[in-house]
Amino acid sequence: MAAFDIGKLDDVIHGRVRLGIMAYLADAEAADFTELKALLEVTQGNLSVHLRKLEEVGYISIDKSFVDRKPLTRVRMTPAGRKAFAAYLEAIAKLVGDG
Amino acid sequence: MAAFDIGKLDDVIHGRVRLGIMAYLADAEAADFTELKALLEVTQGNLSVHLRKLEEVGYISIDKSFVDRKPLTRVRMTPAGRKAFAAYLEAIAKLVGDG
Repeated sequence: MAAFDIGKLDDVIHGRVRLGIMAYLADAEAADFTELKALLEVTQGNLSVHLRKLEEVGYISIDKSFVDRKPLTRVRMTPAGRKAFAAYLEAIAKLVGDG
Repeated sequence: MAAFDIGKLDDVIHGRVRLGIMAYLADAEAADFTELKALLEVTQGNLSVHLRKLEEVGYISIDKSFVDRKPLTRVRMTPAGRKAFAAYLEAIAKLVGDG
């Protein structure tokens, strides 16, 4: 059995767009919706779907507020999200190490 | 823009089961169907779908033969597959390096 085990890959994180979101939030303390949308080159609808999925499992928190009467959506990784992402990196690092 | 770029992740390889197939074939010269099915803990139908997808893009070759009148399906990574997998590992390594 190769050291790399797909069973250890968290499907919620492994999805390409969600992986991009988590990787960005791992570095940046927080990010806003438009920033993520531009960075990941995804549509508004697509990004919302993936953010909701990450929020549902508690990996991110989404804060909606108004700045100069304009809506602002800020996204942050939760402690549970950081823990899950660290475990994901460990599982995927086995693949890179094997490569 | 974080060094990690989801645009560089080859979707054909990034799918969890296909990633498991490619990671295993990167180490093992070849693998047979039942070996992969047991290792990846997937159904016959599911494995067939993913093998066909990798074959369609030319990343693997599938050789069907009979041994003692029993069908044997052998799977091998092609040179194109090895090249694509190396590029995939490079893209994902940026994530692990970033983490």
